[in-house]
Amino acid sequence: MDYEEFRTRGKEMVDYVVDYLQSIEERPVYPSVEPGYLRHLIPESAPEQPHSFEEVMKDVERVVMPGITHWHSPHFHAYFPTGNSVPGMLGDMLSNAISCIGFSWAASPACTELETVMLDWLGKMLNLPHQFLAGTNGEGGGVLQSTASEATLVGLLAARRKKVLHIQADTPDLEERMIMTKLVAYMSDQSHSSVERAGLIGGITMRKLPSDSQLSLRGETLKQAIEEDKAAGLIPFFLCATLGTTASCAFDSILELGPICNSEKVWMHIDAAYAGSAFICPEFRPLLNGFKTSPNMMVKKRSDLIGAFKVDPLYLKHEHQDSGTFSDQCFYCLYFHWGIPLGRRFRSLKMWFVFRMFGIKGLQEHIRKQVNLAHEFEGLLLQDKRFEIASDVVLGLVCFRLKGSNDLNEMLIKRINAGRKIHMVPCNLQDKFVLRFAVCAATTESKHIHYAWQIIKELATELLDEGYQ
Amino acid sequence: MDYEEFRTRGKEMVDYVVDYLQSIEERPVYPSVEPGYLRHLIPESAPEQPHSFEEVMKDVERVVMPGITHWHSPHFHAYFPTGNSVPGMLGDMLSNAISCIGFSWAASPACTELETVMLDWLGKMLNLPHQFLAGTNGEGGGVLQSTASEATLVGLLAARRKKVLHIQADTPDLEERMIMTKLVAYMSDQSHSSVERAGLIGGITMRKLPSDSQLSLRGETLKQAIEEDKAAGLIPFFLCATLGTTASCAFDSILELGPICNSEKVWMHIDAAYAGSAFICPEFRPLLNGFKTSPNMMVKKRSDLIGAFKVDPLYLKHEHQDSGTFSDQCFYCLYFHWGIPLGRRFRSLKMWFVFRMFGIKGLQEHIRKQVNLAHEFEGLLLQDKRFEIASDVVLGLVCFRLKGSNDLNEMLIKRINAGRKIHMVPCNLQDKFVLRFAVCAATTESKHIHYAWQIIKELATELLDEGYQ
Repeated sequence: MDYEEFRTRGKEMVDYVVDYLQSIEERPVYPSVEPGYLRHLIPESAPEQPHSFEEVMKDVERVVMPGITHWHSPHFHAYFPTGNSVPGMLGDMLSNAISCIGFSWAASPACTELETVMLDWLGKMLNLPHQFLAGTNGEGGGVLQSTASEATLVGLLAARRKKVLHIQADTPDLEERMIMTKLVAYMSDQSHSSVERAGLIGGITMRKLPSDSQLSLRGETLKQAIEEDKAAGLIPFFLCATLGTTASCAFDSILELGPICNSEKVWMHIDAAYAGSAFICPEFRPLLNGFKTSPNMMVKKRSDLIGAFKVDPLYLKHEHQDSGTFSDQCFYCLYFHWGIPLGRRFRSLKMWFVFRMFGIKGLQEHIRKQVNLAHEFEGLLLQDKRFEIASDVVLGLVCFRLKGSNDLNEMLIKRINAGRKIHMVPCNLQDKFVLRFAVCAATTESKHIHYAWQIIKELATELLDEGYQ
Repeated sequence: MDYEEFRTRGKEMVDYVVDYLQSIEERPVYPSVEPGYLRHLIPESAPEQPHSFEEVMKDVERVVMPGITHWHSPHFHAYFPTGNSVPGMLGDMLSNAISCIGFSWAASPACTELETVMLDWLGKMLNLPHQFLAGTNGEGGGVLQSTASEATLVGLLAARRKKVLHIQADTPDLEERMIMTKLVAYMSDQSHSSVERAGLIGGITMRKLPSDSQLSLRGETLKQAIEEDKAAGLIPFFLCATLGTTASCAFDSILELGPICNSEKVWMHIDAAYAGSAFICPEFRPLLNGFKTSPNMMVKKRSDLIGAFKVDPLYLKHEHQDSGTFSDQCFYCLYFHWGIPLGRRFRSLKMWFVFRMFGIKGLQEHIRKQVNLAHEFEGLLLQDKRFEIASDVVLGLVCFRLKGSNDLNEMLIKRINAGRKIHMVPCNLQDKFVLRFAVCAATTESKHIHYAWQIIKELATELLDEGYQ
């Protein structure tokens, strides 16, 4: 293979990428293709002979771009933001060139070690209690999971394992599979769908608890459920609490939930997939208070996680492994016991580029800008009496609706997305159909907020004029 | 954020990447750092103020590169190859710029649709029976999983779900958790460690069956295990067979195993994480014979996979979902029911670049070159009577040892890796300590095979001269 080709083509791709991102506003943010559009645009089979880079790039515009929902358009207000930045792209280019599989320390020491330190950097940025840091001698620390779904699943499996071992300590003859039939985990009715999935995958009962009027899971609700389940002979072992729910960015009361989990020996996992990054700003950090009571994917005892998955074949052993430097308390050869996949990309490299090239200050500014823009949108809404805010605006998400029926609001979002000028998704909050406006792209500015508001307002007028209510 | 910076920095990174890959041979393939080396080279916390790109890149050489095991060095002969190519890096750059999360069709239609077609392209390249293709109306098809570990786990969970539903059809009152206590899955003693982990995660009994003298799992062995387990009141439901085991690239006899799985209603999952790509060459395709009898991560019935994970929140619904175009038989809105994570990167874009810019011919040439180099190494070994080949050389892996004790061979690989000129890992084959020589990097040529052989030969002479035996 001739890497020299990358010197030319890679630079052409850099230009394409910059041009794409700089002119992204000019593309409709949401595509107008119909399901199945793509198959007919490309051949049925891979080509026998190689195609040139030019041919492929021509097809990127013809085949791929018409079917892209542009997540980094400043007109994208759906779901939640996903990261994309110059430092991140640079770090990933390097990670792709090194392209190692970091399943053990020896498979690329830098890959494992940088991850350990980057997670400590993150822990410090979040001002976590020192038990959650690895440091040189700590028992805690963090691990990058591929997705939030995996983090929840891994937490649940580790908690399952811990509870089984705990029970077997008293009753050694009781088989794991029999214990599992008695285990019960908890989530709220606002938890992400992946929490329910984690229960399905882990083969345990997952009980959905009602949130309060603020969409927050409260201590009393959990306490009552635990008591009922214990009375029925079940064994509570896991709670997934959420800080910043997907639907409305609501916050479970971990200050109430934490002590109950502690006294009932229930593992408390906190899903902060969206809101987590905001905690690097001191003004939002109080939302995380109570965290000191809970283990997490930043964990206080690494060995709890490791125990859930440990399998050790010879081809993964290496000279340092039995040297005493390595043990179950140690990260270095054991990251692969921490998650579902054995292979891991060198993702901490990207983190390192992002942390350094933005600095904590730059990252905080980014968060604050997003939150301010959400409040700006909230302000516009509040001036229009036809609309109501559906839940508190805490970070970069505004949940709102037209006063009136669910059908009216469903019609509104249909027209918004049919226009393809901005893109949003709805949610259900206590049987109300609600529109979610998320500030997503890093390039979103005040003018984009006003642009979106103008579209929403006009479509609302149009609908109300047509007699919808 | 100013994307224009990427125009300059991205091109500098392209140059760095090409220079790194072109001079990779000059770096020691295996690092000489000690565990914990990295933490002391960088600050304890993230910087407050941003660092420049130049500062970060200076630290790449100072901090990261000394701790890298260079997987793409032609002197890297450990584990198995991992992909890295000019088309792959180009495709990933574009995928990072688009940076969408493809959890549903609407989240980026091209992301879902290109994946469907690319997996069909792959299925055709592998000459799979048409039932495994999605096409326009097929019931089969493929899905990209993050890692082989996940593919196995997802297969096991889907099989678990299918068996539970099957039993509940007869006995509706029997709870899933009670059925799970009776389920039993099978792997061979040569299966990858991730198969055992899948059993732990899925909470079911995983039974390890002995392979024969060729390290192959045979039909008779499975049949006997199934009969024993059924007699003990257990319910066999899943087999993970391997084509190309990690230790020695051995092949389970799927021609024997398939019919047994069919008649016993046991889901047969085939792990071909390494050998799979070789099946695109007609001369290696017969190794896959018997595949027609088995579902896989290329599956004959997509609904079997989907059923295992289905959870449907409103924020992931979209206009087309209830249109009739979409159903459980359909890919487009349902890829996220197919695996562990909800979010998915646009990985099929990379596949598309790779398939097109190499062409089938280019990919076949690459496979053949790797296999020929392995045979060249085998030829060199066979001329030296001090060595023995430990298992048949079928693809790009040669398992061998010095005739003599396990200690002798353990000492040999220690010295090989201590020299840091080439890198290999060992394995255990039927209680023998064996050295694995894998042809990995795409840039490996005949001269690198001879270079490696020279080193191995000299170290063997040195050891034998010192009296080891």
